[in-house]
Amino acid sequence: MNPVEILDAKREGRSLDRASLSAFMTGYLEGTVEEYQMAAFLMAVQFRGLDDGELTDLVEIMIGSGSVLELDHLPSPRVDKHSTGGVGDKVSLVLSPLVAEAGLHVPMMSGRGLGHTGGTLDKLEAIPGFRTDLPLDEFLEVLGAERAAMMGQTAEIAPLDQRLYALRSVTGTVPSIPLIAASIMSKKLAEGLDALVLDVKTGSGAFLSQRDDSLALARTMVGIGERYGVRTTALLTAMDRPLGRTAGNALEVREAVECLRGKGPEDLREVVLALSAELLLSAGEASSFEAARERLAELLDGGAPLARFRRLVQRQGGDPRTVDEVDRLPQAPVVREVRVDAPSHVAEVRPVPLGMAVIALGGGRTRLGQEIDPSVGFSVLVQPGEILEEGDLLGRVHAASEEAAREGEARLRDAVHLGRSRGTPGAPSPLISHRVDASGVWPWDPVGSQRG
Amino acid sequence: MNPVEILDAKREGRSLDRASLSAFMTGYLEGTVEEYQMAAFLMAVQFRGLDDGELTDLVEIMIGSGSVLELDHLPSPRVDKHSTGGVGDKVSLVLSPLVAEAGLHVPMMSGRGLGHTGGTLDKLEAIPGFRTDLPLDEFLEVLGAERAAMMGQTAEIAPLDQRLYALRSVTGTVPSIPLIAASIMSKKLAEGLDALVLDVKTGSGAFLSQRDDSLALARTMVGIGERYGVRTTALLTAMDRPLGRTAGNALEVREAVECLRGKGPEDLREVVLALSAELLLSAGEASSFEAARERLAELLDGGAPLARFRRLVQRQGGDPRTVDEVDRLPQAPVVREVRVDAPSHVAEVRPVPLGMAVIALGGGRTRLGQEIDPSVGFSVLVQPGEILEEGDLLGRVHAASEEAAREGEARLRDAVHLGRSRGTPGAPSPLISHRVDASGVWPWDPVGSQRG
Repeated sequence: MNPVEILDAKREGRSLDRASLSAFMTGYLEGTVEEYQMAAFLMAVQFRGLDDGELTDLVEIMIGSGSVLELDHLPSPRVDKHSTGGVGDKVSLVLSPLVAEAGLHVPMMSGRGLGHTGGTLDKLEAIPGFRTDLPLDEFLEVLGAERAAMMGQTAEIAPLDQRLYALRSVTGTVPSIPLIAASIMSKKLAEGLDALVLDVKTGSGAFLSQRDDSLALARTMVGIGERYGVRTTALLTAMDRPLGRTAGNALEVREAVECLRGKGPEDLREVVLALSAELLLSAGEASSFEAARERLAELLDGGAPLARFRRLVQRQGGDPRTVDEVDRLPQAPVVREVRVDAPSHVAEVRPVPLGMAVIALGGGRTRLGQEIDPSVGFSVLVQPGEILEEGDLLGRVHAASEEAAREGEARLRDAVHLGRSRGTPGAPSPLISHRVDASGVWPWDPVGSQRG
Repeated sequence: MNPVEILDAKREGRSLDRASLSAFMTGYLEGTVEEYQMAAFLMAVQFRGLDDGELTDLVEIMIGSGSVLELDHLPSPRVDKHSTGGVGDKVSLVLSPLVAEAGLHVPMMSGRGLGHTGGTLDKLEAIPGFRTDLPLDEFLEVLGAERAAMMGQTAEIAPLDQRLYALRSVTGTVPSIPLIAASIMSKKLAEGLDALVLDVKTGSGAFLSQRDDSLALARTMVGIGERYGVRTTALLTAMDRPLGRTAGNALEVREAVECLRGKGPEDLREVVLALSAELLLSAGEASSFEAARERLAELLDGGAPLARFRRLVQRQGGDPRTVDEVDRLPQAPVVREVRVDAPSHVAEVRPVPLGMAVIALGGGRTRLGQEIDPSVGFSVLVQPGEILEEGDLLGRVHAASEEAAREGEARLRDAVHLGRSRGTPGAPSPLISHRVDASGVWPWDPVGSQRG
């Protein structure tokens, strides 16, 4: 295998056969293909893409570069959810115990915040004592006991993806749909799943902001999952605004617990129920989307998922009292209320500046391995379409100091675009716009004919 | 300067300003931009190209990364020729003393064989004792005495180009017109020239085989030269067959000496005269192309350029007797005649397999720094369009052993395509097809109105 011939072929748009792609990737892991050659390959893929055959091969090579979870001993279907990343997205904390309560196993491996977005691991670690770096045997023990367990990706899962991911971030080769799809799917397919649901974000706060790109990513990932025999569906959800009314790790845990009590913001509950219902349907545990959703809503309102979450927190080393006494979660010393000074309506709540504001408050990272402050962020955030009177809250800033709180206020005011009067705000974009499954792309219509 | 932002911009097709490009390139030389980041940049350039501003900036940054020859003390115009590389191309050995004899200074820095092509340095070193690694002061001394001197590129000339050139060869980023143009022109513009002529090869044996690509390269290089105030013209010459009737280092020196005697193959003489006439015109030393060509032809036939070449050989450490007694050049122990066994015509003499055959005989390199055998190669080669009787020569193989000679014969027979009968061969492609200058691209027409 001559790496330069493979680079020439990819540059010229010729399809690579499995043997060539495998030799190139194996050579990279073994050091005979250099970092600069892989960098050139990734940039060529930015322009030439990967065809279905290349993509399937790449995902298989990535999975085969490491270990795969062996979960065949578990009696019920294994499922997971993956989100492409957003601001205020605490869905995993609710979905995981909820779907487990409904009888499925959820071996969830999550990530940390990236760019302006938050990460499930960082949110879980806002709970005092919570360990996300479980050894595999302990992870399987929690999973066996609670049908759910939550940890970070280990070095043994798809190490090729981990190296490519790191290289992409420093070579300007992040926004490639096939590379994003291969990275996500190689990790998820190494979890030994029966079904997977993907929450593909779209809008200014998503890594792929254009709806067509988001749809292409969803279709690519669903295609990979189906070729691997994992029933995969994707929902396109709005990330032109944050999800829910909080952003910041401990504040998002509080909101997730609210949701687990059957309360909390409507948009969060709706996304949790829709994604969870997809998993029940894919796993054959419900006869229709509506039936699945109804059952899940009843479970949420009944409190059993909350109890399961409490046990899960305890088993993973966290303080279970925080679930009932949320004031035991880390609290910022300064809370600053930000109010509007004239009647107005909320035109936009922009996720990128809001996510960057959480990072500026100390709640996210600007470099790898940085310590973060779990207590800071924003709560009681307004949502697009709301009508505000003079003196109404835009949100609360939770900060480590008065100075940081003042900067947080400025950033919040910058992130929120207000219409000049109470006026008539335009309708916000649909919370869920499309569903993608093996049969194609469908406008979101939970009672439509394509379901059940 | 964030290298990733520059990579993002180039990937998205946004133009880079001079400060960004300069910071990126300087960072690369200083080690703050990694090899893998430059590799990704080069691959992005393959797809996005460089606009005129970026190209001008890149060439200037390349030149500025090293030293520039200071030749202002020389009384007459300084000129040089560059060829994009071919098989059998010994033009520099004739052009250099010829143009010097006509009164111009020729500070020529040449290269070695690359891929299937030969290199001027390797040909010169076939002359026993000839040194191409002159210290700069000695180079200037020879140049002052003979108005011509020939050496290899030193480490001080455009070191950025040298690093990029090496990286391109291992990252599949060689065939980019702006990168090729910048590489060539940065080296030539560091020679402190007044005029430059480019021999841009086209056809199967050229690095850019398609005529449109060759023309684009020629236009790009002429544009760079003109923006730097160096009068630059380019001729498109045929490399769908070798130039002349020899390929191999010592054999090509013999043929160059023949040409310097006013003899030798017509095609070689024609290309030498055309390129040399362009230099005289650009330097303002002739009133018309025809006048320049006529004067140069008379010089060649008069023998003064041969005498100058003999002195140049001696001054650079070579044995001057080889010029008059060419049998003193290295001679291969085995010479094998290859003949046709039926009446036929020569349809094609393919340069790439012929060049690869010279390498297989030991006359070129398959890896950097390899020793080569100057004596081997091919002579008395047929040319396309010739009509052959049974028993006529296809060429002679000069080899180190009988076994090598047999392989050489097989490769020669593979490189030459014969028509089945004496037939009527089609006309070969024009030896010189286009001329490119600051005003545009012109079909080659040496007596046409665009000249003088």
